[in-house]
Amino acid sequence: MSKQAVKIGILGLGTVGAGTARLLQRNAVEIYRRLGRDLRVEIASVRDEKADRGCDTESFALTADPMEVVNHPGIDIVVEAIGGETLAKQLVLAAIANGKHVVTANKALIALHGSEIFAAAEQHNVSVCFEAAVGGGISIIKSIREGLSANQIKLVAGIINGTGNFILTEMRNKGRIFEDVLQEAQQLGYAEADPSFDVDGIDAAHKLTILASIAFGIPLQFDKVYCEGISGLQLVDVAYAEELGYRIKHLGIAKLTAGGIELRVHPTLIPEKRLIANVDGVMNAVLVKGDAVGNTLHYGAGAGAEPTASSVVADIVDISRNLGSDRACHIPFLGFQADSIAELEVKPDGQFESAYYLRVEVNDVAGVMSQLASVFADLKVSLEAITQKEPARGETAVSVILITQRTLEAQITSAISTIEAMPDVRSAVQRIRVEHLD
Amino acid sequence: MSKQAVKIGILGLGTVGAGTARLLQRNAVEIYRRLGRDLRVEIASVRDEKADRGCDTESFALTADPMEVVNHPGIDIVVEAIGGETLAKQLVLAAIANGKHVVTANKALIALHGSEIFAAAEQHNVSVCFEAAVGGGISIIKSIREGLSANQIKLVAGIINGTGNFILTEMRNKGRIFEDVLQEAQQLGYAEADPSFDVDGIDAAHKLTILASIAFGIPLQFDKVYCEGISGLQLVDVAYAEELGYRIKHLGIAKLTAGGIELRVHPTLIPEKRLIANVDGVMNAVLVKGDAVGNTLHYGAGAGAEPTASSVVADIVDISRNLGSDRACHIPFLGFQADSIAELEVKPDGQFESAYYLRVEVNDVAGVMSQLASVFADLKVSLEAITQKEPARGETAVSVILITQRTLEAQITSAISTIEAMPDVRSAVQRIRVEHLD
Repeated sequence: MSKQAVKIGILGLGTVGAGTARLLQRNAVEIYRRLGRDLRVEIASVRDEKADRGCDTESFALTADPMEVVNHPGIDIVVEAIGGETLAKQLVLAAIANGKHVVTANKALIALHGSEIFAAAEQHNVSVCFEAAVGGGISIIKSIREGLSANQIKLVAGIINGTGNFILTEMRNKGRIFEDVLQEAQQLGYAEADPSFDVDGIDAAHKLTILASIAFGIPLQFDKVYCEGISGLQLVDVAYAEELGYRIKHLGIAKLTAGGIELRVHPTLIPEKRLIANVDGVMNAVLVKGDAVGNTLHYGAGAGAEPTASSVVADIVDISRNLGSDRACHIPFLGFQADSIAELEVKPDGQFESAYYLRVEVNDVAGVMSQLASVFADLKVSLEAITQKEPARGETAVSVILITQRTLEAQITSAISTIEAMPDVRSAVQRIRVEHLD
Repeated sequence: MSKQAVKIGILGLGTVGAGTARLLQRNAVEIYRRLGRDLRVEIASVRDEKADRGCDTESFALTADPMEVVNHPGIDIVVEAIGGETLAKQLVLAAIANGKHVVTANKALIALHGSEIFAAAEQHNVSVCFEAAVGGGISIIKSIREGLSANQIKLVAGIINGTGNFILTEMRNKGRIFEDVLQEAQQLGYAEADPSFDVDGIDAAHKLTILASIAFGIPLQFDKVYCEGISGLQLVDVAYAEELGYRIKHLGIAKLTAGGIELRVHPTLIPEKRLIANVDGVMNAVLVKGDAVGNTLHYGAGAGAEPTASSVVADIVDISRNLGSDRACHIPFLGFQADSIAELEVKPDGQFESAYYLRVEVNDVAGVMSQLASVFADLKVSLEAITQKEPARGETAVSVILITQRTLEAQITSAISTIEAMPDVRSAVQRIRVEHLD
């Protein structure tokens, strides 16, 4: 006797929604072999009932009214795939109130409204799963929340925005300028319609917010993430970093230190020997360091219809295994018991420690290198390297590149102010953080 | 009101057992925050009650009789950490018969006796978890079995023996010969007491057996794994591979093809640009390719007390979350429902396809390269490269290196026979498989 099918409603048949429906159809046999039950899409809401879906819509109902999905009496699990915050939140809360489990790929929704959503889900004894919200198909949330549950997590550092990594990879491999690659990424459909989410680091900050909560058991607090995008990066910095043995990657970093937690998203020089420095194109990778396990790396496609659907469907399978059991949500949403979520201090901007790459244009005159070096000596900041680049033909300005050892960010900010006030200095100082990740 | 502590018995306080006890003690607070229950070691069996354990043994009982652990009425979960097959199997079956859940890091036990153990566990409605059996702390079993449950898995290819990878890394980086590095690995405690498990590939074959079952939903069948170790590798091959843009890694490969499943463990040339080619030292990494997710890579420490304990304790946490629930083992042991485990055909030796690196010593006479090339032309095997190395001073023999395109292994075996019978050929042919993993 086979068990009844699990019935699914999908909100939105865009990239993620249609990808989910298609994957459920294509791998129905394989999924049944694992789960012992069928997963059946009953209904999906769409904005335009006539548009091409990229999936077979004949086997389920379509509606223009998303409330019809969340109020559908036969539905066990609602997949939220419309994105955005306002309507998505309203629909998710309505589904939960109706006793339905929820699966979402919506990182902004979880990062900004997760606490409210989880409280409602707890009250109604339903699951809310969001594996696809971070790292597409990598299943990084499961790995941290369950696979590494024995560890005190020390560090999470990830390439978690595929568009940004695509742009940086093209800049490095082909010497293309930022604006040019961004345009291509938009044409290829990688970039969000509003590219600021990708290039200003907001998307990565949403994801880091979630990763930090499940790593350290702290509340979701997007507003405390220091966030710097890649739009200020210049080709010369990519090239100079390379000469010095580094790659520039846009990292989300959540770090447990004695003085508090660091939450920051910014371009980062990483030694080229690290595996994560060699993660190219639209791929994602997340380094997780635990006190017992040491360094682990989790790599895979961070976006796209199928990898995202892979995680959405895995969440559906997880929920379905517990359907009809006495405890639906036996794994806490953030991996820690609700009453154990701790308000650990998040360090304010400027209070974290890093090494730094600095580039500045100076007049090609005697003594300028020593003047620069003395700024750091006065602040007791050690330099790892200081090099001067030959001036371009006919130019009187030269570039000086400095790499510092680890120091407090505020020290560097102070050094930059001093340098920019020096008479022989002809440009603002370009600052990029350096992490060795060893 | 806090829930009762989960009570644990440990069989054996060697590296894994003591590491587990230590980790449970050290991270008790963090684990409680996640689980909402204490995990308490009640009793452990030891061979020598006086030996130093590397963990605090004052809080639990020690016994010389392992049956006392599995028969202990207060124990919920038994951790099997004695290794080996015979006694371990007997104890695990006894624990299951007593209604206790089991966690083990014993890959040989699962690869060889898993089916019998799982059947007993099913009958007694208890869990048997074995995350630590493969890839130490990487949680690769959870990732495949749960994280990628929406996928039809196409390929698993992993560096799953840390000792072997340490030896290959030292050979490449320092030009050291095999025997020399093996001796150091033994002194460092990496290698098993009987090094044949590491260097002949048996340990990797045990692990591959498990990975293949959870990837494809096939029975555990260790005896069908083609197994070749690293003891036949020579330094010249490591160097020549390097010159051609490859690294040599010892891989376990499980591949789904139209003609059946390939299960094989052998040294492999991998293009140096692949992330997995850059996994060095005792680290492990497993590449998993799913039809939806594409390529993923899972990297971390593959052995050692703490990484192994990380997975053992994660299994304990998973089991503890479901203790007292109506369904202890809601995730099937191998990720597929027992009645869906399929007897897919495993290809016999020689029937799988690969590209090949071949090295042979020949007399330095005119026409020998063309004779070699014609052997492959006759078999309709395409060559990707054929190069001749300058003879050493005073030598009349030269090395010829060939790289073939993908072809049936039996074709290459036939080519090798033909070559070795040629009058100008002065050595056996060294054969190493080549996988591009793209």
